[in-house]
Amino acid sequence: MTRNGKLYGVGTGPGDPELMTLKAVRALGEADVLAYFCKKGSTGNGRGIVAAHIRPEMIDLPLVYPVTVEKHRKSADYNAEIAAFFDRSAEAIAAHLDAGRTVAVLSEGDPLLYGSYMHLHLRLAPRYEAEVVAGVTAMSGCWSMAGLPLVQGDDILTVLPGTLEEEALIERLSGTDGAVIMKVGRNLPKIRRALETAGKLAGAVYVERGTMATGFAQALDARGDEPAPYFSLVLVPGWQSRPAAMAEAAQ
Amino acid sequence: MTRNGKLYGVGTGPGDPELMTLKAVRALGEADVLAYFCKKGSTGNGRGIVAAHIRPEMIDLPLVYPVTVEKHRKSADYNAEIAAFFDRSAEAIAAHLDAGRTVAVLSEGDPLLYGSYMHLHLRLAPRYEAEVVAGVTAMSGCWSMAGLPLVQGDDILTVLPGTLEEEALIERLSGTDGAVIMKVGRNLPKIRRALETAGKLAGAVYVERGTMATGFAQALDARGDEPAPYFSLVLVPGWQSRPAAMAEAAQ
Repeated sequence: MTRNGKLYGVGTGPGDPELMTLKAVRALGEADVLAYFCKKGSTGNGRGIVAAHIRPEMIDLPLVYPVTVEKHRKSADYNAEIAAFFDRSAEAIAAHLDAGRTVAVLSEGDPLLYGSYMHLHLRLAPRYEAEVVAGVTAMSGCWSMAGLPLVQGDDILTVLPGTLEEEALIERLSGTDGAVIMKVGRNLPKIRRALETAGKLAGAVYVERGTMATGFAQALDARGDEPAPYFSLVLVPGWQSRPAAMAEAAQ
Repeated sequence: MTRNGKLYGVGTGPGDPELMTLKAVRALGEADVLAYFCKKGSTGNGRGIVAAHIRPEMIDLPLVYPVTVEKHRKSADYNAEIAAFFDRSAEAIAAHLDAGRTVAVLSEGDPLLYGSYMHLHLRLAPRYEAEVVAGVTAMSGCWSMAGLPLVQGDDILTVLPGTLEEEALIERLSGTDGAVIMKVGRNLPKIRRALETAGKLAGAVYVERGTMATGFAQALDARGDEPAPYFSLVLVPGWQSRPAAMAEAAQ
């Protein structure tokens, strides 16, 4: 009788391979199968981050997203196709687990914070031994690279998608101390207006490809409105009580 | 002429020594001086997490918090005493940097997210080479240990201190998808009422000493109202659109 293998959801961290955890490295060392989400024609960003820890004998299991650009993201068609994709992906992994192989699924940043791994975890954790290896999030990588203290003491921190309507953005930004705005893309003009209305534009920082070799940070004020790539964030620092002279020095 | 040393703000991660990053290990390997915040009579939690990476020849620099329990946290006296303490701590570190020594300051979790290191960074980064090593946050450690998918897609995530007034807690919890409530302590009855009013009590999970050897997670519903220790959090999962049967299996 074969003993089932173990499932690892492995947070790779935000991009810099040195921001992997010791536990992620160990999990990869134990894994017989390396699974990762990617688009057709690409091997995905996560696989690049962990490249130094891939052994030649590991079984490579790309989970290739279906081409859905033609369909609207909220449509029933899109949702059914994506659900079927996650079902198929879970079964491909289950076949390896049934054969006694340990499978590491890569997740950029932290697996349970906006990660695609969550879809597999819900499907597989009830049936197999599963362990989630927490990772450094993209936002931590970004504010660390920028050297920007984000929140302190009793501050409230809110993580928002830039896809929200302008009124909702304004309301949420007005009711928080620090904020992280994700999914910047084509929403930059709207995000800028919302920050201005909420009185939080002055300190906001734009970070592109944080912790990656080509990454950079700049004041949002100094950046144009051209669309941002996928790996970008807007950071809004809280900690309003910090000494003013120091606040300036930290910019 | 002596070249100045380098300052590292090193995120130690949430408690499990394996959740340190490769970069944190390297920074400790480069450091001549190990600085860490602690209370009188203790060497602090961060130093315990990195213990395996401390070399005998490293200079130990404890930064001992002044005894302030007698003073109200919002009083002018308290604020002046704490500011003077951070000034003194920064100068103690600056003396080592001036002498050409590299100093690693430990910060549990991530240095720029509610970390005491932020006070030193503001004082020293304008004068010395300083690098922040991002870390896995306490909250990531907690939801990973609990295997609890937190937020997905366009979800809003809000991080709140349990010290907020009940009305403010209700308002913030009502306007978010996922939430993390910190500073639980004696605020548990109030947090529970606020979650109930906001309709978010059912899925809430209480985590104590997440990722540490003695850590555990349980449904908040199943926990009494006795005060919680410092290392505790309440997690409120978002992702309301996930399949209901799976949501149950994940609990």
